Amino acid sequence: MVVVMRPDATCAQTAQIISRIEGWGYRIHLSEGEERTIIGIVGNGRPLDRGQIERMAGVERTVPILRPFKLASRDFHPQDTAIRVGNVTIGGPNLVVIAGPCSVESREQLLETAWAVREAGAHMLRGGAFKPRSSPYSFQGLGEEGLRILAAAREATGLPVVTEVMEPDLVPLVASYADVLQIGARNMQNYALLRAVGESRQPVLLKRGMMATIEELLMAAEYILSQGNDQVILCERGIRSFETYTRNTLDVSAVPLLKQLSHLPVVADPSHATGKWELIEPVSRAAVAAGADGLLIEVHPRPQEALSDGAQSLKPARFTAMMQGLRPITQVLGRSL
Amino acid sequence: MVVVMRPDATCAQTAQIISRIEGWGYRIHLSEGEERTIIGIVGNGRPLDRGQIERMAGVERTVPILRPFKLASRDFHPQDTAIRVGNVTIGGPNLVVIAGPCSVESREQLLETAWAVREAGAHMLRGGAFKPRSSPYSFQGLGEEGLRILAAAREATGLPVVTEVMEPDLVPLVASYADVLQIGARNMQNYALLRAVGESRQPVLLKRGMMATIEELLMAAEYILSQGNDQVILCERGIRSFETYTRNTLDVSAVPLLKQLSHLPVVADPSHATGKWELIEPVSRAAVAAGADGLLIEVHPRPQEALSDGAQSLKPARFTAMMQGLRPITQVLGRSL
Amino acid sequence: MVVVMRPDATCAQTAQIISRIEGWGYRIHLSEGEERTIIGIVGNGRPLDRGQIERMAGVERTVPILRPFKLASRDFHPQDTAIRVGNVTIGGPNLVVIAGPCSVESREQLLETAWAVREAGAHMLRGGAFKPRSSPYSFQGLGEEGLRILAAAREATGLPVVTEVMEPDLVPLVASYADVLQIGARNMQNYALLRAVGESRQPVLLKRGMMATIEELLMAAEYILSQGNDQVILCERGIRSFETYTRNTLDVSAVPLLKQLSHLPVVADPSHATGKWELIEPVSRAAVAAGADGLLIEVHPRPQEALSDGAQSLKPARFTAMMQGLRPITQVLGRSL
Amino acid sequence: MVVVMRPDATCAQTAQIISRIEGWGYRIHLSEGEERTIIGIVGNGRPLDRGQIERMAGVERTVPILRPFKLASRDFHPQDTAIRVGNVTIGGPNLVVIAGPCSVESREQLLETAWAVREAGAHMLRGGAFKPRSSPYSFQGLGEEGLRILAAAREATGLPVVTEVMEPDLVPLVASYADVLQIGARNMQNYALLRAVGESRQPVLLKRGMMATIEELLMAAEYILSQGNDQVILCERGIRSFETYTRNTLDVSAVPLLKQLSHLPVVADPSHATGKWELIEPVSRAAVAAGADGLLIEVHPRPQEALSDGAQSLKPARFTAMMQGLRPITQVLGRSL
Repeated sequence: MVVVMRPDATCAQTAQIISRIEGWGYRIHLSEGEERTIIGIVGNGRPLDRGQIERMAGVERTVPILRPFKLASRDFHPQDTAIRVGNVTIGGPNLVVIAGPCSVESREQLLETAWAVREAGAHMLRGGAFKPRSSPYSFQGLGEEGLRILAAAREATGLPVVTEVMEPDLVPLVASYADVLQIGARNMQNYALLRAVGESRQPVLLKRGMMATIEELLMAAEYILSQGNDQVILCERGIRSFETYTRNTLDVSAVPLLKQLSHLPVVADPSHATGKWELIEPVSRAAVAAGADGLLIEVHPRPQEALSDGAQSLKPARFTAMMQGLRPITQVLGRSL
Repeated sequence: MVVVMRPDATCAQTAQIISRIEGWGYRIHLSEGEERTIIGIVGNGRPLDRGQIERMAGVERTVPILRPFKLASRDFHPQDTAIRVGNVTIGGPNLVVIAGPCSVESREQLLETAWAVREAGAHMLRGGAFKPRSSPYSFQGLGEEGLRILAAAREATGLPVVTEVMEPDLVPLVASYADVLQIGARNMQNYALLRAVGESRQPVLLKRGMMATIEELLMAAEYILSQGNDQVILCERGIRSFETYTRNTLDVSAVPLLKQLSHLPVVADPSHATGKWELIEPVSRAAVAAGADGLLIEVHPRPQEALSDGAQSLKPARFTAMMQGLRPITQVLGRSL
Repeated sequence: MVVVMRPDATCAQTAQIISRIEGWGYRIHLSEGEERTIIGIVGNGRPLDRGQIERMAGVERTVPILRPFKLASRDFHPQDTAIRVGNVTIGGPNLVVIAGPCSVESREQLLETAWAVREAGAHMLRGGAFKPRSSPYSFQGLGEEGLRILAAAREATGLPVVTEVMEPDLVPLVASYADVLQIGARNMQNYALLRAVGESRQPVLLKRGMMATIEELLMAAEYILSQGNDQVILCERGIRSFETYTRNTLDVSAVPLLKQLSHLPVVADPSHATGKWELIEPVSRAAVAAGADGLLIEVHPRPQEALSDGAQSLKPARFTAMMQGLRPITQVLGRSL
Repeated sequence: MVVVMRPDATCAQTAQIISRIEGWGYRIHLSEGEERTIIGIVGNGRPLDRGQIERMAGVERTVPILRPFKLASRDFHPQDTAIRVGNVTIGGPNLVVIAGPCSVESREQLLETAWAVREAGAHMLRGGAFKPRSSPYSFQGLGEEGLRILAAAREATGLPVVTEVMEPDLVPLVASYADVLQIGARNMQNYALLRAVGESRQPVLLKRGMMATIEELLMAAEYILSQGNDQVILCERGIRSFETYTRNTLDVSAVPLLKQLSHLPVVADPSHATGKWELIEPVSRAAVAAGADGLLIEVHPRPQEALSDGAQSLKPARFTAMMQGLRPITQVLGRSL
């Protein structure tokens, strides 16, 4: 960390800060410029609280130098992490497509969708049993009945299942049915939940919060990793911006940036990012071209009857066409689908 | 809701949509302009899923007309809601100041602060026992020991206590010690938690998420209200913007807007909004002048030794001066402090 | 436009609004719901001022139905617009790559770069002679001398030239040297400048403002088109968000969305969007996969000596490698490079 | 500036950077930590280009230490700047209220408004003759005829006049009629215009761009100051955020922050910030309580007939009431109105 002193800071103030910080076991590099004195702090491994130092007399501000994430960083773990779920490997040479409806609505709806997406080449099945809805009056999901339907669909089609878990207490229940536990965007900083999935040994698909920086996403991953669960898949699903023509703004640069900063696999969710089915195909191609290891795509046999997010769901025929369009792109990128 | 058809929509498509929506029990008003056909839907009380309609053939987009919140709205409940906590009333004629440290660190620290803020005129004591921290390596709070210290400080000073609860399971425990349950910004859309505090009968201080719209804040309040708990205090604590000189951007217009849209009391948190102790005093005055019913202020006897957020904590002397400065302003606004 | 009345609006207020709007030559559709009365206004071609109506007694708010852009919209002009610049066509089947340094620094630097990017397959040369710099103390460009150097580079290499114009008065001068006039992001709503380039008959490359919505970008294009210049190229160059790891956030969804809403060609600028040379290649691939008609890429022979934006400039060798990587992708997308 | 090296940077790379930077006449402080090497650069007065250094081999990123503005900073000019316009002083002990219609529409409208706001206690008159409108089809202002009407209103009422100038060429014309030249939010980074008003000797009211950081606003002021015009009034008029219930988000913390960082007077514009007349009064009170030196308020005798921005205009009676409400607040803050 670097401490920038106020222009009117006294020598006594600077000396006092240095002695305090050295007292905590850090080494100091002092640099006195014409306009500002700067104190460089050389770490002893333990994190420093910026707020604490910024409150000392004479300090203008502090500037962090090291990234605050460790276990999630590529510096710490240079080779790619690949995560195996059933027969599928996320983060390896193959692009992984996870498809299915926003919500599990019925056995018929889910099985019809599951067969259709498998037919089209999807590798995993997604579907919500517990749904985070901004209104208490909206459909909240089928709950455990939804989980049972998901398990039945896996049984029938062989596709591993991804589903969201919203409460720490429900982690064991959801984990007993699902192959991958999804943390939704609204829960990215629900630390009790992050710890609970960190204690489970199931792979976790961690969605970036719509207000979260890349650093905060990696810190959320760090919570899970620090509990001993090293199977975390990062998901870029669009951030909130001032633009209103799309539901969110897919931060496509985050895909290569996350791959640079971290060893964890990165998938993208064009359905939530755009909120518009017409944009899913071009935005999926973009995410793959940017280096995504996988895609999350909402597919519903009859979107106009969906109980949630119909506007961003593809019909199976359109999904099939999209998969066909993706194949040659993945190929020229040296991957396969 | 209003449905805007595409310019190339056919009469058959329009007819089909009308028949479907009428089949759900809604009335229809059709308006055929030169460039667009518009279908007005007159409600039957049940909410409609926009995504479902937007996926019907010929539809360009939908526009909601009614606000999605009911119990939280002033239309539904025209008179102000005032919430009584011990001897204190939030949302009445008096401005309520809730002060204390970011985290409870020790019995000594909390008692020292509690006496100091009471002396300066604060009405309630705040302090975190369970802390949401973006890093798993940061101080996470004293937990139940912190709750016990808070209760001891109330015992000693008579100040009611506000503290954050982060997990649904911990609601009964925290409620057994605290007078007001705080929902933090990161948990504003943690629906399980909202339901849990809705089921408790304790007043709830609900912080706006840092990237939540005013409508989403009121929908979060709706979750709590719809469980039968009508004691919700809304808190504007700054939203995330592109500006980096302050920690967040206090949306001061949200204060009068929330008072207009809702009957619930509104408080502001200048400490988190600015992240800088030098700005707390002017921004507190601004929030009060805009009509806030109360303030949340971080006070720490020795901010440079605080275990969290020292940079945004006032020392007791400064807090006392701030309270003195606020008094004449509240007076000319027709309130008292 | 739709006018939503307040819940407490009186019949007299509604009648008064209707009579006023009908007096302006519009037709009215009235829809009285249980909670709100809604007035639909059917256009007579002339735009209505929302603020004027929102100020009438009894009105809660207004909702626009039609997009405010006409000449830029695909409804108005269904087929793609292709723009010819010398031998190059932007908006046709071929992907167009515009490359060159941020600033023209010297004849040697520009010619070296021009030959290198031509060698690598670029179709046009970019370079700034007049530079918008946030500091008055930074290098402001070579001015007319820079324009002369650009013209010399075109002479030598045959590459058409794109350069920014920052003042209405300078449009004739810049147009006398350049093939395409660039409007920078900071000037997207400089209406005097938009009118000036609209009056010239040169093609215009219009960059999206870093906090401009897609609708505002199309309205800026409308300014140029409404002056009779129909050769406008839209450019997505990243919007401002809360994320700080990248310079801006490339809104990749804007590419297909602009192609849907408008007939104008769309190019992307990954250099400014990311601010980091390591991200240019993956983000360029993403933009192309999303359907961009072209790319703007900063290339500098010695970025560490560049007078501006070295961090986001590619060296020629890296640019050549990037072009080779793009070729198979454009091919599988049915275009050529 | 501080240069952070990559974890894998070699000693040779570090040595090369040091030698290059020392070659430019800077002094170096080297700090080798366990995880990162950091190079502190001690200035020689000339600004460094971060991009250039970030492109050198082995560099991870750079961190600026000094604020880039000088003439605008309080470090450089510790005492407050007060600007005299006719009998009015902005930045002194008195709060200055600048009121009037969004656009000058006619002699009658402007004179009626001017007398009304003078009566209510306003100190200056505002009104647009040249209007920046996002649509080329909207009313663009009366141009020079509007300027003549403004001058006539000053003649009649004695109120100094503030009006916007949108083009460098028009600065002499506008300056010949107006007392204060306004730079609109969309033109905050129109550098040719900033230079042109910098060369005039008229006071300038500089509005913060809706996408501009506080640092960028101060850099725009620096452009004007560096041309020798030291009469710059800063104006906070709301920034763009994701919130849509208000037109913009007034960044109330910017008021005290700008007063801290700079010696220039700061005014606030609650009309544009909120876009809603009902919010102007509480938000005006907030801005004043936060320390603003003045307010810009839109007043129109018949807002429902205004040619622009009727929704955010106060009627004279409401404006009068607002002024009465502000008086006791300014008094308790030790100022007068």
